[in-house]
Amino acid sequence: MTPLERLRARIDRLGAPLCLGVDPHPDRLPDGLPPGAGGVESFARGLIEATSDEVVAVKLNVAFFEAFGSAGWSVLERVRRDLPPDLFVIIDAKRGDIGSTAERYATALFGHLRADAVTLSPYLGEDAIEPFLDYADRCVYVLARTSNPSAASVQELGGGTPVYLGVAAWVASTWSDGRVGLVVGATAPDELARVRAAVPGPGFLVPGVGAQGGDLDAAVRSCHGAWAPGVVSISRAIAEASPGADWRDAAASSARELRGRMREAVLHSGPSAAAAAP
Amino acid sequence: MTPLERLRARIDRLGAPLCLGVDPHPDRLPDGLPPGAGGVESFARGLIEATSDEVVAVKLNVAFFEAFGSAGWSVLERVRRDLPPDLFVIIDAKRGDIGSTAERYATALFGHLRADAVTLSPYLGEDAIEPFLDYADRCVYVLARTSNPSAASVQELGGGTPVYLGVAAWVASTWSDGRVGLVVGATAPDELARVRAAVPGPGFLVPGVGAQGGDLDAAVRSCHGAWAPGVVSISRAIAEASPGADWRDAAASSARELRGRMREAVLHSGPSAAAAAP
Repeated sequence: MTPLERLRARIDRLGAPLCLGVDPHPDRLPDGLPPGAGGVESFARGLIEATSDEVVAVKLNVAFFEAFGSAGWSVLERVRRDLPPDLFVIIDAKRGDIGSTAERYATALFGHLRADAVTLSPYLGEDAIEPFLDYADRCVYVLARTSNPSAASVQELGGGTPVYLGVAAWVASTWSDGRVGLVVGATAPDELARVRAAVPGPGFLVPGVGAQGGDLDAAVRSCHGAWAPGVVSISRAIAEASPGADWRDAAASSARELRGRMREAVLHSGPSAAAAAP
Repeated sequence: MTPLERLRARIDRLGAPLCLGVDPHPDRLPDGLPPGAGGVESFARGLIEATSDEVVAVKLNVAFFEAFGSAGWSVLERVRRDLPPDLFVIIDAKRGDIGSTAERYATALFGHLRADAVTLSPYLGEDAIEPFLDYADRCVYVLARTSNPSAASVQELGGGTPVYLGVAAWVASTWSDGRVGLVVGATAPDELARVRAAVPGPGFLVPGVGAQGGDLDAAVRSCHGAWAPGVVSISRAIAEASPGADWRDAAASSARELRGRMREAVLHSGPSAAAAAP
């Protein structure tokens, strides 16, 4: 099975496209964990173990490991190595560089870390994307409209058509085999709907539900594309469900509840979601 | 002295804003070096040692180290640790992420690697830049118009005003203390001139001269801003001056010759360059 086939099968089995976002900040570790990179490793491992029955994918945010330099990269390597093999592994790196540099980042993330998918920045065009697609069956998610407060500063430049829609159209018209999806934040539901209406094909990686306040129903409705399944990534609402010693149980409960709400949203989204499935 | 004051003093002393770009690809190592990360380390160290009298800055491209995972990050840490203290240290990372993730990348690049400056992607807006500016006196270069073939796909979206000019104007109007510069490629001299005409303030980091075919005179003329000095970064024309065992001498000669040509360009650029100096 290719990574996308594995993802599709697991979404069918669990009934919800929940992705665990792993962004362990050393200043926000729960009680009882050691400080620094050791605590970050224990927290990441514990979150994955507690929630792996409820999620289809895990998104590891490189920055939270890279902050410790080579020691943090060693943690990232170990956490990735021990991930359950049936999960779809997204490395959230938002890299974006040209030619031979992009090829080196692809070597790091696909060759060395064996990601199923990575997040990439669109700013440098095809040159920043193609070296990743040289890895057979691997996937990328290109940033279109992000979930942060200042997203509009650049993503809504442009007169008639904002940049984020231009980027979505460029991606959908350049690559159409389902391996190139889009990152579209759930905190901007109007923009999310606009992107989905403009490009029915690509699967979406949708962050911003939970602590960032995004709309869960809208996220679930829109993440599935005609060419590929999408996922909704949730980080803090699971990781910070309890700051106490019961953080593992609280994370498991939160993931179970979020998966249940997503199943409801999938069931109630009716024929449109079914029609979008390939 | 702040890093920018140190850079300005060194440009005055050497008479040319030459930056050594360090992008050591394991498939393009010169004769006599071991393969893999060991060869990459020897090559990076040798290039820096051979050229450090001719350059004002060194730009380390993270991807070429990160390709080896934690082992490559260890090499990057050692190479950075041993850099001559009078050089301006640019970590070319092109990171671009939001809030706490950007803060973690700033910890990695400014806190851990002690860069004087980093390259950043503009796509996520102020949220991706501000956490780096929390480090007093450090600098960032935000991508505006890059030097690669597909640069126009996203950077020239937009009806009347292309995205790269919108980004340049946004940067210049948001931060004006000289710590936020722009990356503008030398392979697009018309666009380089357009950006400089639109935003006289920021210093530019100009890649693309040499192997990529950019215009050295135009690069030197435009890199200096009213608020901060700029640098012209050259990689392969120095690193690959000879593929043989004499690569160190060839790199030194190439850097000396490029510095000489840049000095000429500075001298002949006349009052406009002087007027641009603060």
